[in-house]
Amino acid sequence: MYARRAERLAPTLPPSAVTGTIGFDSGHAFPGVLPDLTREADVALTRYRAETLQYAPRAGLPDLREWIASYTTGVSVENILVTNGAKHALELVCRVLLDEYDPIIVTAPTYFSAIPIVRSFGATFIDVPQDASGLDVSALAAILGRLPRPPKFIYNVPDYHNPTGVTMPIERRQALIALAERYQIMLVEDSPYREVRFEGTPVPSLKSLGGDRVILLGTFAKLMAPGLRVGWAAAPAPFIARMAQLKTDAGSCPLTQRVILEFLAAGRLPQHIERVQATYRANRDHMMAALARELPEATYDRPHGGYYIWLTLPDGVSGDAVAACAAQQGVSIIAGSKFYANPGPTHHVRLAFSHASHEEIDDGVRRVAEAVRAVRQ
Amino acid sequence: MYARRAERLAPTLPPSAVTGTIGFDSGHAFPGVLPDLTREADVALTRYRAETLQYAPRAGLPDLREWIASYTTGVSVENILVTNGAKHALELVCRVLLDEYDPIIVTAPTYFSAIPIVRSFGATFIDVPQDASGLDVSALAAILGRLPRPPKFIYNVPDYHNPTGVTMPIERRQALIALAERYQIMLVEDSPYREVRFEGTPVPSLKSLGGDRVILLGTFAKLMAPGLRVGWAAAPAPFIARMAQLKTDAGSCPLTQRVILEFLAAGRLPQHIERVQATYRANRDHMMAALARELPEATYDRPHGGYYIWLTLPDGVSGDAVAACAAQQGVSIIAGSKFYANPGPTHHVRLAFSHASHEEIDDGVRRVAEAVRAVRQ
Repeated sequence: MYARRAERLAPTLPPSAVTGTIGFDSGHAFPGVLPDLTREADVALTRYRAETLQYAPRAGLPDLREWIASYTTGVSVENILVTNGAKHALELVCRVLLDEYDPIIVTAPTYFSAIPIVRSFGATFIDVPQDASGLDVSALAAILGRLPRPPKFIYNVPDYHNPTGVTMPIERRQALIALAERYQIMLVEDSPYREVRFEGTPVPSLKSLGGDRVILLGTFAKLMAPGLRVGWAAAPAPFIARMAQLKTDAGSCPLTQRVILEFLAAGRLPQHIERVQATYRANRDHMMAALARELPEATYDRPHGGYYIWLTLPDGVSGDAVAACAAQQGVSIIAGSKFYANPGPTHHVRLAFSHASHEEIDDGVRRVAEAVRAVRQ
Repeated sequence: MYARRAERLAPTLPPSAVTGTIGFDSGHAFPGVLPDLTREADVALTRYRAETLQYAPRAGLPDLREWIASYTTGVSVENILVTNGAKHALELVCRVLLDEYDPIIVTAPTYFSAIPIVRSFGATFIDVPQDASGLDVSALAAILGRLPRPPKFIYNVPDYHNPTGVTMPIERRQALIALAERYQIMLVEDSPYREVRFEGTPVPSLKSLGGDRVILLGTFAKLMAPGLRVGWAAAPAPFIARMAQLKTDAGSCPLTQRVILEFLAAGRLPQHIERVQATYRANRDHMMAALARELPEATYDRPHGGYYIWLTLPDGVSGDAVAACAAQQGVSIIAGSKFYANPGPTHHVRLAFSHASHEEIDDGVRRVAEAVRAVRQ
């Protein structure tokens, strides 16, 4: 079946489709929005060769730390650590804060790649429910009131949450920070999708509202390209110094840092962000239209940014079974169960609209709908 | 004093000298041997853009793993993990193997950057002495015979040891492997300088002699350029799989990996290694001549490769005091005490001849000699 479909679709679809597999699973960028960085690399490897091919400062190139500090409300350069992506920053936060059996707070569901990182330090998870405004702060207050000691940190994705797509309004953010202050718990704000905004205005970050109570994780993966592998943490200076001590990369790659700096210095970022927003907005709209047409029995909240739609399947339909069946139909999606740190609901799946073309979205959603119907029978 | 010297030397010296500081401390490359990688980056960012700007496989680009496997005797692709430098590989080895209070074996002295990485996992160090043939296997046998349980691993730099410069002959390597086999201890072979060889023929690696008993750490930092931040581990396949699980970078940077592959595919490596060897050989000879002239009271073994000379100072002269005094004279060296995991001898300093020009070597060794005489008085 793969081969037949692939043959039929090959002329209009990108290489991934040649094998018949449509990728709704990953957080890969849409190939058409990957920027041309040849000029930036050329400058980085000529004018800056003595910098880009030597060891770099462990905390990051000073110019890049300056830029990130100016991009982030309420911090300065000593609050910034450049890392090999935001997940690397989360690992370093865990290395500083966690001891074995420490509990941490996560939403249910939460970003599935954060789970094994935290778990590898022997920590345990306490789930907090979410609603259409994100993390349920009243529920968290009740949980904290019952705990014998406060958890080490609260991990959350407040902007275009992964996987649910919801964004916390400012009142909810303020309430969360007040609660974290009351119990003296650090807040880890993971915000890769903040600029991947389709409508509405940005809500102030937890970091800008909560100051030293918050460790912000950022990345150029969604601002520019995943392959650069450059992210950052913004945190109190002594915390950044401890994270830097635990970095074993002898400084993140100065070549990719300088490529980013040249891109920023050329003023290309605002235009690139507009292109990213327009591309993913159109992809979201296309996927929503396909879902309305092909799978009206599933429900979801319209995401105002990010890469994902979090589908609630009809009662009794297992997301794991749908994902397995969809894979056989040549479309990769991720079962909702993977997004729960502790066992949770099983009737969800996450669809990424970031990487696929419109044709793939149409075809892929049709196959997902077939998978749902096959599982229901 | 800094300013006056800097002014006098500025026309012939690299930028670091403009501030008056001569760098004998770091493992930076000589600026003149940093390769031109502009063509490689251009190809990586055009023909391979869909690869180099997206997430890469966690274990590394398959082509690069293939190349490393073919470069390494006795392994295949599933034995290779691409990392963000060799120290990152060491960290992952520690994460897999170490529990708090575990002892590991190191030479005294040992590579000083390995010490805090191992220590950050709560492990402890057992020192083994070295002689002109490297790690003293008889002494290690005596130590292992007395321990209640075997250490988790033996860490060593068998080729052009950092800091002492000694290389283990094959018989010594075979004896070490036999001992590790007898006690079922893993050997971690850190070998960044293997190709930075000035004379003689290479000795077979511990990995080629010891097979699955050995975890080899390699790097392109010394083969090509430190700033690329690409290294690797070669180990049994299940061990590599576990290391890959613990990698939090979502795959090492595919852009720098592809730049390296293009450099290798163009056949540039052999010629580049010749240039590296000629440059550092000349630097070593220049530093040895300067030491004979300026500081005949210090002794050292002639290194046949690598970046460093390990100076034994006259009796009663503290390496820490000499390093502090030399810093005031505008030359950075590292006190020998920093290379001991447990408190050790204090009458050594390490001089790196890799980064400095010949003029800087002459001037820097003169200043080190002045520092030694100032401390002696």
